[in-house]
Amino acid sequence: MNIEKIEAAATRLKGIARRTPLLSSPHLDAIAGRRVFVKPECLQHTGSFKFRGAYAAVSALPPEVRARGILAYSSGNHAQGIARAAQLFGVPAVIIMPQDAPAAKIEGTKALGGEVVLYTRGGESREAIGARLAETRGLTLIRPYDEPEVIAGQGTCGLEIAEQAAERDIDRAEVLVCCGGGGLTAGIALALEARAPGLRVRPAEPEAFDDTARSLASGTRQSNTQEAGGLCDAILTPTPGEITFPINARLCGPGLSVSDAEVLQAMALALRHLKIVAEPGGAVALAAALFRSEALEADTVIATVSGGNVDAAVLARALAG
Amino acid sequence: MNIEKIEAAATRLKGIARRTPLLSSPHLDAIAGRRVFVKPECLQHTGSFKFRGAYAAVSALPPEVRARGILAYSSGNHAQGIARAAQLFGVPAVIIMPQDAPAAKIEGTKALGGEVVLYTRGGESREAIGARLAETRGLTLIRPYDEPEVIAGQGTCGLEIAEQAAERDIDRAEVLVCCGGGGLTAGIALALEARAPGLRVRPAEPEAFDDTARSLASGTRQSNTQEAGGLCDAILTPTPGEITFPINARLCGPGLSVSDAEVLQAMALALRHLKIVAEPGGAVALAAALFRSEALEADTVIATVSGGNVDAAVLARALAG
Repeated sequence: MNIEKIEAAATRLKGIARRTPLLSSPHLDAIAGRRVFVKPECLQHTGSFKFRGAYAAVSALPPEVRARGILAYSSGNHAQGIARAAQLFGVPAVIIMPQDAPAAKIEGTKALGGEVVLYTRGGESREAIGARLAETRGLTLIRPYDEPEVIAGQGTCGLEIAEQAAERDIDRAEVLVCCGGGGLTAGIALALEARAPGLRVRPAEPEAFDDTARSLASGTRQSNTQEAGGLCDAILTPTPGEITFPINARLCGPGLSVSDAEVLQAMALALRHLKIVAEPGGAVALAAALFRSEALEADTVIATVSGGNVDAAVLARALAG
Repeated sequence: MNIEKIEAAATRLKGIARRTPLLSSPHLDAIAGRRVFVKPECLQHTGSFKFRGAYAAVSALPPEVRARGILAYSSGNHAQGIARAAQLFGVPAVIIMPQDAPAAKIEGTKALGGEVVLYTRGGESREAIGARLAETRGLTLIRPYDEPEVIAGQGTCGLEIAEQAAERDIDRAEVLVCCGGGGLTAGIALALEARAPGLRVRPAEPEAFDDTARSLASGTRQSNTQEAGGLCDAILTPTPGEITFPINARLCGPGLSVSDAEVLQAMALALRHLKIVAEPGGAVALAAALFRSEALEADTVIATVSGGNVDAAVLARALAG
């Protein structure tokens, strides 16, 4: 993994992925006690940053391999990213999703032409199901984060952050990234290392799924004790990635974690002051920016809102809070 | 009013106003039966396009005049735009707002340093209250739409639409604009006339407040029979503007109107598929794009979402629909 790979992904994504703006509100600055910018990847195609990595990986395949079809396993955002990327290339996509994924994500994936195969968490592993399908149908598996082309695609979000920070004369900031397997975190960290070295990434996670924070603290990959059941479905991975963790261990500052109540509050504040829809897993970094002042150092924080694919009932719950 | 005035406003707004992106979703295309792009001015500073015109007008004043303070009357979005523009220049702003304006807008205006004076619709006119205050305190009144510098500022949204259409090789489209007094409509129409003549503006209004559509059809300025009570508070003006109407009569296609139920549905679809918050008055153009297919001609429609300042209860109502 290097900056050239991210730049190459950016070239392939030009005119395809959306360059999301950098948003802010004096109301949020007042809550945080510092300057807060938000990178709203919920506005990306398919409603999350995952489209960047999915398209980067699908577009990197040799055409004859791509034509046989793509396989992915995902709780929903990578699923939609892969389904849309495959649709744009006119090739099949088979997506293995957990049965408890939000309905909006399952329907969204199907509506984008994805063939959805549901599995039960705790039963046969999605990896085993995927391996069998890949073999029988000649599909190419694109992993959600432990895949260099995917990390390169997510890194294009970091290139944009570097440019947008420079436009505002920001040369020192903490960049809070919603962290599951660590693909977005690693991609952004690599891009910033090369293009904006004064900007340091801090991974953000839900309190009950803080494997990356504990892994960064201990120096070795730690697991979550729970596998499911959290509010933040998008980022409930069992453990940091094999490829992503060494990158994040080298480049990131300490992890931050927030409660579900803080996540819901951040979702409501994003609706009210930024006019964007954040899903729970997409709101952890903003929640950390707003409610973990004591753990932050820089005068300026840039928080990713990594996705906005949330069922109406959860959104209504955030609004009612 | 001419394109040079809009270009001059764009120069003053550079680095101050946000360049909002152009969003889209295959799901919305499928509903509309054509390609739909959305210009989300809800993502603009203060949550609506009004910041453009407010800042353009405040920045055009001679410094010694500006220093005495600004006066505005507004149901809420112009109020917040003026309050924020005055705050950025460090000068006072007095805003006359109707007592039935959404709480979010009254509070938002106060939080931006605006001094709010409430009046009752149907009682003493806001114009009379404004004239008295302007005289006694030396304030400069900035009208919400019948003011050339305000129209020029709103026109910068049209310059962006022209550029963003060109980037996508769109040389023919209908541009649906949420229309109250007609300032945004006129500004965009003037910008497109000069920079993208194949793009034609169509004003969109609520059914019960379709003064512009009737005025365009008859060729003379018509009034609404109701003055208040509609869902779409942002665009409940009694009649098209004196300055804006001749511009819109020369440049716009026929007006479109939509029901409150369609507005709520468009708000829900914007939340779900674009991840943006549209307020009722800001969703009329999108509602027309989605539900007035028979009245549209072009293969491509660009709908403004002009604002997102909506109380949580109304947003919850849209979500529950």
